[in-house]
Amino acid sequence: MNIVLLETEQCHSIDAWQINQARQLQHLAQHLQLNVGDTLKVGVRAGQRYLTEVVCISEHGITVRPIQTEVVPAKLPVHLILALPRPKVLRRIIMDAVTLGVERISLIHSYRVDKSYWQTPFLQQLNDYVTLGLEQAGDTLAPEIQLYKRFKPFVEDVLPTLIVAEQPAYVAHPYAEQPMPYAIQHRCSVIIGPEGGFIPYEVDLLIKNGCQAMSLGNRILRTETAVSNILGRLFV
Amino acid sequence: MNIVLLETEQCHSIDAWQINQARQLQHLAQHLQLNVGDTLKVGVRAGQRYLTEVVCISEHGITVRPIQTEVVPAKLPVHLILALPRPKVLRRIIMDAVTLGVERISLIHSYRVDKSYWQTPFLQQLNDYVTLGLEQAGDTLAPEIQLYKRFKPFVEDVLPTLIVAEQPAYVAHPYAEQPMPYAIQHRCSVIIGPEGGFIPYEVDLLIKNGCQAMSLGNRILRTETAVSNILGRLFV
Repeated sequence: MNIVLLETEQCHSIDAWQINQARQLQHLAQHLQLNVGDTLKVGVRAGQRYLTEVVCISEHGITVRPIQTEVVPAKLPVHLILALPRPKVLRRIIMDAVTLGVERISLIHSYRVDKSYWQTPFLQQLNDYVTLGLEQAGDTLAPEIQLYKRFKPFVEDVLPTLIVAEQPAYVAHPYAEQPMPYAIQHRCSVIIGPEGGFIPYEVDLLIKNGCQAMSLGNRILRTETAVSNILGRLFV
Repeated sequence: MNIVLLETEQCHSIDAWQINQARQLQHLAQHLQLNVGDTLKVGVRAGQRYLTEVVCISEHGITVRPIQTEVVPAKLPVHLILALPRPKVLRRIIMDAVTLGVERISLIHSYRVDKSYWQTPFLQQLNDYVTLGLEQAGDTLAPEIQLYKRFKPFVEDVLPTLIVAEQPAYVAHPYAEQPMPYAIQHRCSVIIGPEGGFIPYEVDLLIKNGCQAMSLGNRILRTETAVSNILGRLFV
């Protein structure tokens, strides 16, 4: 947590914002021993980021007042399209994608995505994972997240609307001939398959609908490793 | 697991290698429904990689015979120097670093590394994490791993021997002015601090001993996200 993210309704007062969420208070107690007069980085959801000053510490929480605005980091111009990960790794992947600055996330079905994954209660907690990612990055603006429970309609109907001039869609594919580009200067979509990869039918359908299959070399990465690796390479 | 990694002593026979490790057998049973005659990718530790054919499946394990050699992926020419991570993330970070092809790993102490981390039983399991990383990547050659329980002696005595002509050492540092380079063609060391970062004294000592502080932009990444992100950027 590199900023404390507050909801807009917590920040209506000019000089007394109340931090009262148990998770945030617990983190602050554990990692920072705050005293009145100390500064604290605070973000307002979908708004500005501020350096604040602690004005009161009570049993109800910590009150801060904004003293100056700070820069909210820019997003990466990328739409990350992921085969729905195993529930166990979903939290980390969403958190990481948000921390890295992904602008939009789509979770899609694929042959090797177990159908039970769509029933996981973790999918109800996506907003919490987004908040964790924003607080890690010092960002305030949540990406748009969409779920597509059917692969073919997504690829045939949604994907073509995303692939416009100078906005390619790259599928990370171990057996592609072209290497994934790097240091790009344009907007793009990045499509990452499930553990075990997309099946050939899916790769073919993606390519038929305008995607470019790109290799990451001959090491096969776990999905969460691939997300960070590809974004590090594309946007330098 | 994209290959089954066998020990050299399991591969003395010309045409009957026995897979009998419970973990490997369990993974194969769960993810591949192997039959006699199927092919299976197998690596010999510190040796070649092979396409093999399943010749026997019994209660004692699976016997395969090598039918052709395959390419072992090349390592990245990088020495990853990490402040010892929390025990909980140690496994994933080591596994990822190995999967990504890091040639050498040093785990070092730092002010914000809790001393108790050096007592974790997980440090006895590094070889297991390495094996998981190799099996994920399809690699056979374990990186060298060293532990340095004292920061200053490492930085003053060991680090300078690593920084030779055209082999720089980059410290990932959120407040550096220079951006981390990308698409480099030379060997280097990459130094990543603990959660919360290196303290100023440590950054100064690293720079005084020949390191270059490099920024990753104004988003602060978790250590494990940073490892994959930086390697994706440096080696394209």
